[in-house]
Amino acid sequence: MNIELLKAYLEDDYSIVSATNGRDALDLVPEEKPDVILLDVMMPDLNGYQVCETLKGDPETQFIPVIMVTALSGRDDWISGIEAGADEFLTKPVNKMELLTRINSLLKLKKMHYDLLEERDKLNLQNKIRSVLTQIIPTLLRTLPAEQKSVVIHQMIDMVVESILENTDSGSRENGHEGIGDICCNIINQLGANFESGPGEEENTVFLIKGNVCPWGKEEAQLNPILCTISRGIFSRILDTYDQELEVEAIETMGNGDEQCLFQLNKIEY
Amino acid sequence: MNIELLKAYLEDDYSIVSATNGRDALDLVPEEKPDVILLDVMMPDLNGYQVCETLKGDPETQFIPVIMVTALSGRDDWISGIEAGADEFLTKPVNKMELLTRINSLLKLKKMHYDLLEERDKLNLQNKIRSVLTQIIPTLLRTLPAEQKSVVIHQMIDMVVESILENTDSGSRENGHEGIGDICCNIINQLGANFESGPGEEENTVFLIKGNVCPWGKEEAQLNPILCTISRGIFSRILDTYDQELEVEAIETMGNGDEQCLFQLNKIEY
Repeated sequence: MNIELLKAYLEDDYSIVSATNGRDALDLVPEEKPDVILLDVMMPDLNGYQVCETLKGDPETQFIPVIMVTALSGRDDWISGIEAGADEFLTKPVNKMELLTRINSLLKLKKMHYDLLEERDKLNLQNKIRSVLTQIIPTLLRTLPAEQKSVVIHQMIDMVVESILENTDSGSRENGHEGIGDICCNIINQLGANFESGPGEEENTVFLIKGNVCPWGKEEAQLNPILCTISRGIFSRILDTYDQELEVEAIETMGNGDEQCLFQLNKIEY
Repeated sequence: MNIELLKAYLEDDYSIVSATNGRDALDLVPEEKPDVILLDVMMPDLNGYQVCETLKGDPETQFIPVIMVTALSGRDDWISGIEAGADEFLTKPVNKMELLTRINSLLKLKKMHYDLLEERDKLNLQNKIRSVLTQIIPTLLRTLPAEQKSVVIHQMIDMVVESILENTDSGSRENGHEGIGDICCNIINQLGANFESGPGEEENTVFLIKGNVCPWGKEEAQLNPILCTISRGIFSRILDTYDQELEVEAIETMGNGDEQCLFQLNKIEY
Protein backbone atom coordinates (compact mmCIF):
# COMPACT_ATOMS: atom_id res chain seq x y z
CA MET A 1 0.00 0.00 0.00
CA ASN A 2 1.46 3.31 -1.04
CA ILE A 3 0.87 5.45 2.04
CA GLU A 4 1.90 8.68 0.28
CA LEU A 5 -0.62 8.09 -2.49
CA LEU A 6 -3.45 7.34 -0.06
CA LYS A 7 -2.56 10.46 1.92
CA ALA A 8 -2.76 12.52 -1.24
CA TYR A 9 -6.20 11.06 -1.97
CA LEU A 10 -7.53 11.65 1.52
CA GLU A 11 -5.85 14.68 3.02
CA ASP A 12 -8.37 17.20 1.70
CA ASP A 13 -11.20 15.58 3.64
CA TYR A 14 -9.63 13.76 6.57
CA SER A 15 -6.77 14.00 9.00
CA ILE A 16 -4.51 11.00 8.62
CA VAL A 17 -2.17 9.12 10.93
CA SER A 18 -0.07 6.30 9.47
CA ALA A 19 2.08 3.42 10.67
CA THR A 20 4.37 1.19 8.63
CA ASN A 21 4.07 -1.98 10.67
CA GLY A 22 1.32 -3.83 12.50
CA ARG A 23 2.71 -3.36 15.99
CA ASP A 24 2.89 0.44 15.61
CA ALA A 25 -0.61 0.47 14.11
CA LEU A 26 -2.03 -1.28 17.18
CA ASP A 27 -0.21 1.14 19.48
CA LEU A 28 -1.61 4.15 17.64
CA VAL A 29 -5.29 3.14 17.71
CA PRO A 30 -6.10 3.73 21.42
CA GLU A 31 -4.24 7.04 21.25
CA GLU A 32 -5.71 8.37 18.05
CA LYS A 33 -9.20 6.82 18.21
CA PRO A 34 -9.50 6.83 14.39
CA ASP A 35 -12.90 6.85 12.68
CA VAL A 36 -11.78 4.41 10.01
CA ILE A 37 -8.73 2.16 9.65
CA LEU A 38 -7.13 1.20 6.33
CA LEU A 39 -4.99 -1.94 6.62
CA ASP A 40 -2.62 -3.39 4.10
CA VAL A 41 -2.40 -7.15 4.36
CA MET A 42 1.36 -7.12 3.96
CA MET A 43 3.08 -5.47 6.88
CA PRO A 44 6.16 -6.39 8.89
CA ASP A 45 5.77 -7.67 12.50
CA LEU A 46 2.04 -8.29 12.46
CA ASN A 47 0.23 -8.61 9.15
CA GLY A 48 -3.07 -6.93 8.32
CA TYR A 49 -5.22 -9.92 9.32
CA GLN A 50 -3.58 -10.18 12.72
CA VAL A 51 -4.02 -6.46 13.36
CA CYS A 52 -7.65 -6.64 12.25
CA GLU A 53 -8.35 -9.65 14.45
CA THR A 54 -6.83 -7.92 17.46
CA LEU A 55 -8.88 -4.77 16.87
CA LYS A 56 -12.13 -6.69 16.37
CA GLY A 57 -11.48 -8.77 19.48
CA ASP A 58 -11.13 -5.73 21.75
CA PRO A 59 -14.43 -4.20 22.98
CA GLU A 60 -12.76 -0.77 22.94
CA THR A 61 -11.95 -0.90 19.23
CA GLN A 62 -14.33 -3.46 17.73
CA PHE A 63 -16.70 -0.88 16.27
CA ILE A 64 -14.03 1.06 14.37
CA PRO A 65 -14.59 0.17 10.70
CA VAL A 66 -11.63 -1.62 9.10
CA ILE A 67 -10.96 -1.57 5.34
CA MET A 68 -8.51 -4.23 4.13
CA VAL A 69 -6.40 -3.44 1.09
CA THR A 70 -5.76 -6.64 -0.84
CA ALA A 71 -4.30 -7.80 -4.14
CA LEU A 72 -6.77 -7.70 -7.03
CA SER A 73 -7.12 -11.43 -7.52
CA GLY A 74 -6.64 -12.45 -3.93
CA ARG A 75 -9.56 -14.78 -3.26
CA ASP A 76 -7.76 -16.20 -0.23
CA ASP A 77 -7.04 -12.66 1.00
CA TRP A 78 -10.76 -11.94 1.04
CA ILE A 79 -11.57 -15.08 2.97
CA SER A 80 -8.84 -14.37 5.53
CA GLY A 81 -10.03 -10.78 5.77
CA ILE A 82 -13.63 -11.82 6.43
CA GLU A 83 -12.45 -14.28 9.06
CA ALA A 84 -10.44 -11.51 10.70
CA GLY A 85 -13.59 -9.37 10.85
CA ALA A 86 -12.81 -6.73 8.19
CA ASP A 87 -15.74 -4.49 7.31
CA GLU A 88 -14.71 -3.62 3.78
CA PHE A 89 -12.18 -4.39 1.08
CA LEU A 90 -10.31 -2.39 -1.51
CA THR A 91 -8.25 -3.95 -4.23
CA LYS A 92 -4.89 -2.62 -5.43
CA PRO A 93 -4.28 -0.38 -7.26
CA VAL A 94 -6.62 1.69 -5.08
CA ASN A 95 -9.08 3.79 -7.05
CA LYS A 96 -9.62 7.21 -5.49
CA MET A 97 -13.40 7.30 -6.00
CA GLU A 98 -13.77 3.82 -4.60
CA LEU A 99 -11.64 4.71 -1.59
CA LEU A 100 -13.65 7.83 -0.82
CA THR A 101 -16.97 6.04 -1.29
CA ARG A 102 -16.05 3.17 1.03
CA ILE A 103 -14.82 5.50 3.75
CA ASN A 104 -17.82 7.74 3.39
CA SER A 105 -20.38 4.97 3.62
CA LEU A 106 -18.62 3.33 6.58
CA LEU A 107 -18.61 6.66 8.41
CA LYS A 108 -22.27 7.22 7.62
CA LEU A 109 -23.14 3.77 8.95
CA LYS A 110 -20.97 4.19 12.01
CA LYS A 111 -22.67 7.46 12.85
CA MET A 112 -26.15 6.01 12.33
CA HIS A 113 -25.22 3.07 14.52
CA TYR A 114 -23.84 5.26 17.30
CA ASP A 115 -26.84 7.59 17.19
CA LEU A 116 -29.15 4.61 17.60
CA LEU A 117 -27.03 3.14 20.40
CA GLU A 118 -27.09 6.47 22.19
CA GLU A 119 -30.84 6.76 21.82
CA ARG A 120 -31.29 3.21 23.07
CA ASP A 121 -29.14 3.88 26.13
CA LYS A 122 -31.09 7.02 26.91
CA LEU A 123 -34.43 5.24 26.61
CA ASN A 124 -33.12 2.38 28.72
CA LEU A 125 -32.12 4.77 31.45
CA GLN A 126 -35.42 6.65 31.33
CA ASN A 127 -37.21 3.33 31.59
CA LYS A 128 -35.21 2.27 34.61
CA ILE A 129 -36.02 5.52 36.35
CA ARG A 130 -39.69 5.45 35.51
CA SER A 131 -39.81 1.87 36.67
CA VAL A 132 -38.32 2.94 40.01
CA LEU A 133 -40.96 5.67 40.19
CA THR A 134 -43.85 3.34 39.44
CA GLN A 135 -42.74 1.03 42.24
CA ILE A 136 -44.07 3.58 44.69
CA ILE A 137 -47.60 3.20 43.34
CA PRO A 138 -48.67 0.08 45.28
CA THR A 139 -47.53 1.71 48.55
CA LEU A 140 -49.50 4.82 47.74
CA LEU A 141 -52.56 2.82 46.74
CA ARG A 142 -52.58 1.02 50.07
CA THR A 143 -53.34 4.30 51.80
CA LEU A 144 -56.55 4.80 49.81
CA PRO A 145 -59.97 3.59 51.02
CA ALA A 146 -61.00 0.40 49.18
CA GLU A 147 -63.63 1.88 46.86
CA GLN A 148 -61.54 4.92 45.90
CA LYS A 149 -58.64 2.56 45.23
CA SER A 150 -60.62 0.55 42.75
CA VAL A 151 -61.68 3.73 40.91
CA VAL A 152 -58.07 4.89 40.70
CA ILE A 153 -56.85 1.49 39.47
CA HIS A 154 -59.50 1.46 36.77
CA GLN A 155 -58.53 4.95 35.68
CA MET A 156 -54.89 3.97 35.47
CA ILE A 157 -55.62 0.88 33.44
CA ASP A 158 -57.78 2.88 31.06
CA MET A 159 -55.09 5.49 30.54
CA VAL A 160 -52.35 2.93 30.05
CA VAL A 161 -54.37 0.72 27.71
CA GLU A 162 -55.37 3.79 25.70
CA SER A 163 -51.74 4.77 25.31
CA ILE A 164 -50.70 1.23 24.36
CA LEU A 165 -53.38 0.82 21.74
CA GLU A 166 -52.51 4.22 20.28
CA ASN A 167 -48.87 3.25 19.99
CA THR A 168 -48.98 -0.33 18.74
CA ASP A 169 -49.95 -2.16 15.60
CA SER A 170 -52.75 -4.61 16.12
CA GLY A 171 -51.67 -6.44 12.97
CA SER A 172 -54.56 -7.98 11.10
CA ARG A 173 -58.03 -6.71 11.90
CA GLU A 174 -60.06 -9.76 11.12
CA ASN A 175 -63.37 -10.09 12.83
CA GLY A 176 -64.63 -12.98 14.92
CA HIS A 177 -62.61 -15.35 17.07
CA GLU A 178 -60.11 -16.05 14.32
CA GLY A 179 -56.81 -14.41 15.15
CA ILE A 180 -57.90 -12.58 18.29
CA GLY A 181 -55.39 -14.51 20.42
CA ASP A 182 -52.65 -13.48 18.03
CA ILE A 183 -53.72 -9.83 18.15
CA CYS A 184 -53.47 -9.94 21.96
CA CYS A 185 -50.00 -11.50 21.83
CA ASN A 186 -48.85 -9.15 19.11
CA ILE A 187 -49.72 -6.09 21.19
CA ILE A 188 -48.36 -7.36 24.50
CA ASN A 189 -45.18 -8.60 22.81
CA GLN A 190 -44.52 -5.11 21.46
CA LEU A 191 -44.10 -4.21 25.14
CA GLY A 192 -41.31 -6.78 25.45
CA ALA A 193 -43.29 -9.88 26.44
CA ASN A 194 -42.95 -13.24 24.76
CA PHE A 195 -46.52 -14.52 24.81
CA GLU A 196 -48.04 -17.12 22.51
CA SER A 197 -51.61 -17.93 21.73
CA GLY A 198 -52.97 -21.44 21.33
CA PRO A 199 -56.34 -23.16 21.35
CA GLY A 200 -58.06 -23.58 24.72
CA GLU A 201 -58.27 -26.97 26.37
CA GLU A 202 -61.68 -26.66 28.00
CA GLU A 203 -64.99 -26.30 26.26
CA ASN A 204 -65.57 -22.67 27.13
CA THR A 205 -62.02 -21.53 26.59
CA VAL A 206 -61.45 -20.47 23.00
CA PHE A 207 -57.80 -19.39 23.41
CA LEU A 208 -54.98 -19.77 25.88
CA ILE A 209 -52.37 -17.02 26.02
CA LYS A 210 -49.19 -17.89 27.83
CA GLY A 211 -45.56 -16.93 28.10
CA ASN A 212 -42.63 -16.75 30.44
CA VAL A 213 -41.23 -13.34 29.55
CA CYS A 214 -43.12 -10.65 31.46
CA PRO A 215 -43.77 -7.44 29.49
CA TRP A 216 -42.87 -5.42 32.60
CA GLY A 217 -39.91 -7.44 33.80
CA LYS A 218 -40.64 -10.20 36.30
CA GLU A 219 -39.00 -8.42 39.23
CA GLU A 220 -40.87 -5.20 38.60
CA ALA A 221 -44.17 -7.07 38.31
CA GLN A 222 -43.55 -8.82 41.61
CA LEU A 223 -42.92 -5.49 43.33
CA ASN A 224 -45.90 -3.98 41.57
CA PRO A 225 -48.58 -6.59 40.77
CA ILE A 226 -50.89 -3.89 39.47
CA LEU A 227 -48.89 -4.34 36.27
CA CYS A 228 -50.43 -7.81 35.86
CA THR A 229 -53.85 -6.19 36.22
CA ILE A 230 -52.83 -3.85 33.42
CA SER A 231 -51.87 -6.79 31.18
CA ARG A 232 -55.27 -8.30 31.83
CA GLY A 233 -56.85 -4.89 31.13
CA ILE A 234 -55.08 -4.72 27.78
CA PHE A 235 -56.51 -8.09 26.72
CA SER A 236 -59.94 -7.12 28.01
CA ARG A 237 -59.91 -3.89 26.00
CA ILE A 238 -58.78 -5.72 22.86
CA LEU A 239 -61.67 -8.15 23.25
CA ASP A 240 -64.08 -5.23 23.68
CA THR A 241 -62.83 -3.83 20.40
CA TYR A 242 -62.55 -6.95 18.27
CA ASP A 243 -64.67 -9.72 19.74
CA GLN A 244 -67.44 -8.96 22.16
CA GLU A 245 -68.30 -12.61 22.75
CA LEU A 246 -65.10 -13.34 24.67
CA GLU A 247 -63.82 -12.31 28.08
CA VAL A 248 -60.37 -12.73 29.62
CA GLU A 249 -59.47 -14.52 32.84
CA ALA A 250 -56.02 -14.37 34.46
CA ILE A 251 -55.10 -17.87 35.65
CA GLU A 252 -51.40 -17.47 36.47
CA THR A 253 -49.10 -14.43 36.49
CA MET A 254 -45.41 -14.14 37.19
CA GLY A 255 -46.07 -10.97 39.21
CA ASN A 256 -48.07 -13.22 41.47
CA GLY A 257 -45.15 -15.64 41.84
CA ASP A 258 -46.26 -18.19 39.23
CA GLU A 259 -43.74 -19.78 36.86
CA GLN A 260 -45.46 -18.37 33.79
CA CYS A 261 -48.31 -16.08 32.80
CA LEU A 262 -51.48 -17.78 31.63
CA PHE A 263 -54.63 -16.06 30.46
CA GLN A 264 -57.80 -17.73 29.17
CA LEU A 265 -60.06 -16.16 26.59
CA ASN A 266 -63.48 -17.59 27.47
CA LYS A 267 -66.89 -17.43 25.86
CA ILE A 268 -69.15 -15.10 27.78
CA GLU A 269 -72.08 -17.04 29.25
CA TYR A 270 -75.23 -15.05 29.32
CA MET B 1 -24.80 -7.41 -15.98
CA ASN B 2 -24.99 -11.08 -16.76
CA ILE B 3 -28.03 -12.17 -14.76
CA GLU B 4 -27.39 -15.87 -15.35
CA LEU B 5 -23.85 -15.60 -14.03
CA LEU B 6 -24.95 -13.71 -10.91
CA LYS B 7 -27.67 -16.29 -10.33
CA ALA B 8 -25.11 -19.06 -10.54
CA TYR B 9 -22.94 -17.24 -7.99
CA LEU B 10 -25.78 -16.61 -5.58
CA GLU B 11 -28.34 -19.40 -5.86
CA ASP B 12 -26.71 -21.65 -3.29
CA ASP B 13 -27.19 -19.09 -0.53
CA TYR B 14 -30.08 -16.87 -1.59
CA SER B 15 -33.37 -16.96 -3.42
CA ILE B 16 -33.23 -14.64 -6.41
CA VAL B 17 -35.80 -12.67 -8.36
CA SER B 18 -34.68 -10.79 -11.45
CA ALA B 19 -35.99 -8.13 -13.83
CA THR B 20 -34.50 -7.01 -17.13
CA ASN B 21 -35.65 -3.40 -17.08
CA GLY B 22 -36.01 -0.64 -14.51
CA ARG B 23 -39.79 -0.41 -14.61
CA ASP B 24 -40.22 -4.14 -13.88
CA ALA B 25 -37.62 -3.92 -11.14
CA LEU B 26 -39.60 -1.19 -9.36
CA ASP B 27 -42.81 -3.19 -9.71
CA LEU B 28 -41.21 -6.26 -8.16
CA VAL B 29 -39.78 -4.61 -5.04
CA PRO B 30 -43.00 -4.03 -3.04
CA GLU B 31 -44.16 -7.53 -3.92
CA GLU B 32 -40.95 -9.39 -3.18
CA LYS B 33 -39.56 -7.23 -0.36
CA PRO B 34 -35.97 -8.21 -1.21
CA ASP B 35 -33.21 -8.08 1.41
CA VAL B 36 -30.66 -6.70 -1.04
CA ILE B 37 -30.99 -5.23 -4.55
CA LEU B 38 -28.31 -5.52 -7.27
CA LEU B 39 -28.74 -2.87 -9.96
CA ASP B 40 -26.98 -2.61 -13.27
CA VAL B 41 -26.58 0.99 -14.38
CA MET B 42 -27.55 0.16 -17.94
CA MET B 43 -31.16 -0.94 -18.23
CA PRO B 44 -33.93 -0.09 -20.70
CA ASP B 45 -36.85 2.18 -19.62
CA LEU B 46 -35.36 3.43 -16.35
CA ASN B 47 -31.64 3.16 -15.76
CA GLY B 48 -30.05 1.96 -12.53
CA TYR B 49 -29.62 5.47 -11.06
CA GLN B 50 -33.26 6.31 -11.62
CA VAL B 51 -34.40 3.06 -10.04
CA CYS B 52 -32.07 3.59 -7.08
CA GLU B 53 -33.26 7.15 -6.59
CA THR B 54 -36.90 6.06 -6.62
CA LEU B 55 -36.23 3.30 -4.09
CA LYS B 56 -34.26 5.58 -1.79
CA GLY B 57 -36.94 8.27 -1.97
CA ASP B 58 -39.72 5.95 -0.81
CA PRO B 59 -39.99 5.43 2.97
CA GLU B 60 -41.20 1.87 2.34
CA THR B 61 -38.06 0.85 0.46
CA GLN B 62 -35.36 3.30 1.53
CA PHE B 63 -33.67 0.89 3.94
CA ILE B 64 -33.24 -1.93 1.43
CA PRO B 65 -29.52 -1.98 0.60
CA VAL B 66 -28.74 -1.26 -3.07
CA ILE B 67 -25.54 -2.44 -4.76
CA MET B 68 -24.78 -0.71 -8.08
CA VAL B 69 -22.90 -2.68 -10.71
CA THR B 70 -20.72 -0.30 -12.72
CA ALA B 71 -18.00 -0.35 -15.34
CA LEU B 72 -14.50 -0.78 -13.94
CA SER B 73 -13.21 2.66 -14.73
CA GLY B 74 -16.49 4.53 -14.36
CA ARG B 75 -15.61 7.46 -12.13
CA ASP B 76 -18.77 9.29 -13.25
CA ASP B 77 -20.83 6.15 -12.60
CA TRP B 78 -19.67 6.17 -9.01
CA ILE B 79 -20.58 9.81 -8.52
CA SER B 80 -24.03 9.33 -10.04
CA GLY B 81 -24.50 6.22 -7.93
CA ILE B 82 -23.64 8.03 -4.72
CA GLU B 83 -25.98 10.85 -5.67
CA ALA B 84 -28.74 8.29 -6.27
CA GLY B 85 -28.15 6.89 -2.77
CA ALA B 86 -26.53 3.54 -3.59
CA ASP B 87 -25.10 1.72 -0.57
CA GLU B 88 -22.39 -0.23 -2.34
CA PHE B 89 -20.65 -0.71 -5.66
CA LEU B 90 -19.31 -3.63 -7.62
CA THR B 91 -17.25 -3.29 -10.74
CA LYS B 92 -17.59 -5.47 -13.80
CA PRO B 93 -16.56 -8.18 -14.32
CA VAL B 94 -18.14 -9.13 -10.98
CA ASN B 95 -15.86 -11.20 -8.78
CA LYS B 96 -17.75 -13.91 -6.90
CA MET B 97 -15.94 -13.44 -3.58
CA GLU B 98 -16.46 -9.71 -3.74
CA LEU B 99 -20.14 -10.12 -4.56
CA LEU B 100 -20.74 -12.51 -1.66
CA THR B 101 -18.80 -10.33 0.77
CA ARG B 102 -20.69 -7.17 -0.14
CA ILE B 103 -24.07 -8.87 0.14
CA ASN B 104 -23.12 -10.53 3.38
CA SER B 105 -21.90 -7.37 5.06
CA LEU B 106 -24.92 -5.35 3.89
CA LEU B 107 -27.24 -8.01 5.30
CA LYS B 108 -25.34 -8.07 8.57
CA LEU B 109 -25.61 -4.29 8.85
CA LYS B 110 -29.26 -4.29 7.88
CA LYS B 111 -30.06 -6.86 10.54
CA MET B 112 -28.10 -4.95 13.18
CA HIS B 113 -29.90 -1.78 12.21
CA TYR B 114 -33.34 -3.38 12.34
CA ASP B 115 -32.64 -5.07 15.65
CA LEU B 116 -31.65 -1.73 17.12
CA LEU B 117 -34.70 0.00 15.64
CA GLU B 118 -36.94 -2.67 17.10
CA GLU B 119 -35.34 -2.38 20.49
CA ARG B 120 -35.68 1.38 20.36
CA ASP B 121 -39.38 1.17 19.48
CA LYS B 122 -39.98 -1.25 22.32
CA LEU B 123 -38.19 0.96 24.83
CA ASN B 124 -40.07 3.98 23.53
CA LEU B 125 -43.37 2.24 24.09
CA GLN B 126 -42.43 1.03 27.54
CA ASN B 127 -41.41 4.56 28.40
CA LYS B 128 -44.71 5.98 27.23
CA ILE B 129 -46.60 3.49 29.34
CA ARG B 130 -44.50 4.01 32.42
CA SER B 131 -44.88 7.73 31.96
CA VAL B 132 -48.67 7.31 31.90
CA LEU B 133 -48.39 5.25 35.07
CA THR B 134 -46.26 7.81 36.88
CA GLN B 135 -48.81 10.51 36.13
CA ILE B 136 -51.02 8.97 38.78
CA ILE B 137 -48.43 9.62 41.48
CA PRO B 138 -49.27 13.28 42.25
CA THR B 139 -52.96 12.40 42.63
CA LEU B 140 -52.09 9.58 44.98
CA LEU B 141 -49.69 11.77 46.94
CA ARG B 142 -52.40 14.35 47.55
CA THR B 143 -54.32 11.81 49.62
CA LEU B 144 -51.45 11.41 52.07
CA PRO B 145 -51.09 13.49 55.24
CA ALA B 146 -48.45 16.23 54.79
CA GLU B 147 -45.64 14.69 56.84
CA GLN B 148 -46.08 11.19 55.43
CA LYS B 149 -46.08 12.73 51.96
CA SER B 150 -42.73 14.35 52.51
CA VAL B 151 -41.25 11.05 53.73
CA VAL B 152 -42.57 9.22 50.65
CA ILE B 153 -41.25 11.90 48.30
CA HIS B 154 -37.82 11.71 49.90
CA GLN B 155 -37.82 7.94 49.57
CA MET B 156 -38.76 8.17 45.91
CA ILE B 157 -36.06 10.69 45.17
CA ASP B 158 -33.48 8.57 46.95
CA MET B 159 -34.46 5.46 44.99
CA VAL B 160 -34.48 7.29 41.67
CA VAL B 161 -31.22 9.11 42.25
CA GLU B 162 -29.60 5.86 43.35
CA SER B 163 -30.72 4.19 40.16
CA ILE B 164 -29.56 7.09 38.00
CA LEU B 165 -26.11 7.27 39.56
CA GLU B 166 -25.72 3.52 39.20
CA ASN B 167 -26.58 3.73 35.51
CA THR B 168 -24.73 6.82 34.32
CA ASP B 169 -21.18 7.90 33.78
CA SER B 170 -20.24 10.88 35.85
CA GLY B 171 -17.39 11.60 33.45
CA SER B 172 -14.35 13.14 35.12
CA ARG B 173 -14.07 12.70 38.86
CA GLU B 174 -12.06 15.75 39.73
CA ASN B 175 -12.39 17.14 43.20
CA GLY B 176 -13.36 20.65 44.23
CA HIS B 177 -15.64 23.07 42.41
CA GLU B 178 -13.88 22.60 39.10
CA GLY B 179 -16.13 20.64 36.75
CA ILE B 180 -18.95 19.93 39.19
CA GLY B 181 -21.44 21.87 37.04
CA ASP B 182 -20.40 19.78 34.07
CA ILE B 183 -20.81 16.54 36.03
CA CYS B 184 -24.36 17.59 36.94
CA CYS B 185 -25.19 18.40 33.31
CA ASN B 186 -23.54 15.25 32.03
CA ILE B 187 -25.69 13.05 34.26
CA ILE B 188 -28.99 14.87 33.70
CA ASN B 189 -28.32 15.02 29.95
CA GLN B 190 -27.98 11.24 29.81
CA LEU B 191 -31.65 11.26 30.79
CA GLY B 192 -32.47 13.28 27.68
CA ALA B 193 -32.10 16.84 28.99
CA ASN B 194 -30.08 19.52 27.29
CA PHE B 195 -28.61 21.41 30.24
CA GLU B 196 -25.49 23.54 30.26
CA SER B 197 -23.37 24.76 33.08
CA GLY B 198 -21.87 28.22 33.29
CA PRO B 199 -20.34 30.46 35.94
CA GLY B 200 -22.72 32.05 38.46
CA GLU B 201 -23.54 35.73 38.27
CA GLU B 202 -23.88 36.49 41.96
CA GLU B 203 -21.17 36.28 44.56
CA ASN B 204 -22.44 33.17 46.30
CA THR B 205 -23.43 31.31 43.17
CA VAL B 206 -20.53 29.30 41.82
CA PHE B 207 -22.40 27.71 38.89
CA LEU B 208 -25.62 28.19 36.96
CA ILE B 209 -27.17 25.13 35.33
CA LYS B 210 -29.80 25.85 32.73
CA GLY B 211 -31.52 24.35 29.75
CA ASN B 212 -34.76 24.27 27.82
CA VAL B 213 -35.06 20.54 27.15
CA CYS B 214 -36.63 18.85 30.17
CA PRO B 215 -35.18 15.40 30.99
CA TRP B 216 -38.71 14.12 31.64
CA GLY B 217 -40.49 15.80 28.76
CA LYS B 218 -42.02 19.22 29.48
CA GLU B 219 -45.61 18.02 29.34
CA GLU B 220 -44.98 15.14 31.69
CA ALA B 221 -43.18 17.43 34.14
CA GLN B 222 -46.11 19.84 34.12
CA LEU B 223 -48.51 17.02 34.94
CA ASN B 224 -46.12 15.66 37.51
CA PRO B 225 -43.95 18.42 39.05
CA ILE B 226 -42.44 15.94 41.48
CA LEU B 227 -40.12 15.17 38.55
CA CYS B 228 -38.56 18.64 38.95
CA THR B 229 -37.97 17.82 42.61
CA ILE B 230 -36.21 14.69 41.43
CA SER B 231 -33.96 16.70 39.10
CA ARG B 232 -33.06 18.92 42.03
CA GLY B 233 -32.49 15.80 44.13
CA ILE B 234 -30.08 14.44 41.54
CA PHE B 235 -27.98 17.61 41.65
CA SER B 236 -28.12 17.64 45.41
CA ARG B 237 -26.89 14.06 45.63
CA ILE B 238 -24.09 14.77 43.16
CA LEU B 239 -22.95 17.70 45.29
CA ASP B 240 -23.01 15.48 48.41
CA THR B 241 -20.72 13.09 46.61
CA TYR B 242 -18.31 15.43 44.89
CA ASP B 243 -18.37 18.81 46.56
CA GLN B 244 -19.73 19.23 50.02
CA GLU B 245 -19.30 23.00 50.05
CA LEU B 246 -22.06 23.62 47.53
CA GLU B 247 -25.84 23.30 47.66
CA VAL B 248 -28.40 23.48 44.87
CA GLU B 249 -31.35 25.86 44.55
CA ALA B 250 -34.09 25.50 41.92
CA ILE B 251 -34.86 28.96 40.52
CA GLU B 252 -37.01 28.12 37.49
CA THR B 253 -38.40 24.83 36.20
CA MET B 254 -40.44 24.07 33.09
CA GLY B 255 -42.60 21.70 35.14
CA ASN B 256 -43.56 24.78 37.09
CA GLY B 257 -44.49 26.65 33.90
CA ASP B 258 -41.25 28.60 33.43
CA GLU B 259 -39.68 29.02 30.00
CA GLN B 260 -36.52 27.17 31.02
CA CYS B 261 -35.01 25.27 33.90
CA LEU B 262 -32.50 27.16 36.01
CA PHE B 263 -30.62 25.81 38.99
CA GLN B 264 -28.00 27.62 41.07
CA LEU B 265 -25.11 25.88 42.77
CA ASN B 266 -24.43 28.08 45.79
CA LYS B 267 -21.77 28.12 48.49
CA ILE B 268 -23.16 26.84 51.75
CA GLU B 269 -23.06 29.58 54.37
CA TYR B 270 -22.37 28.26 57.80
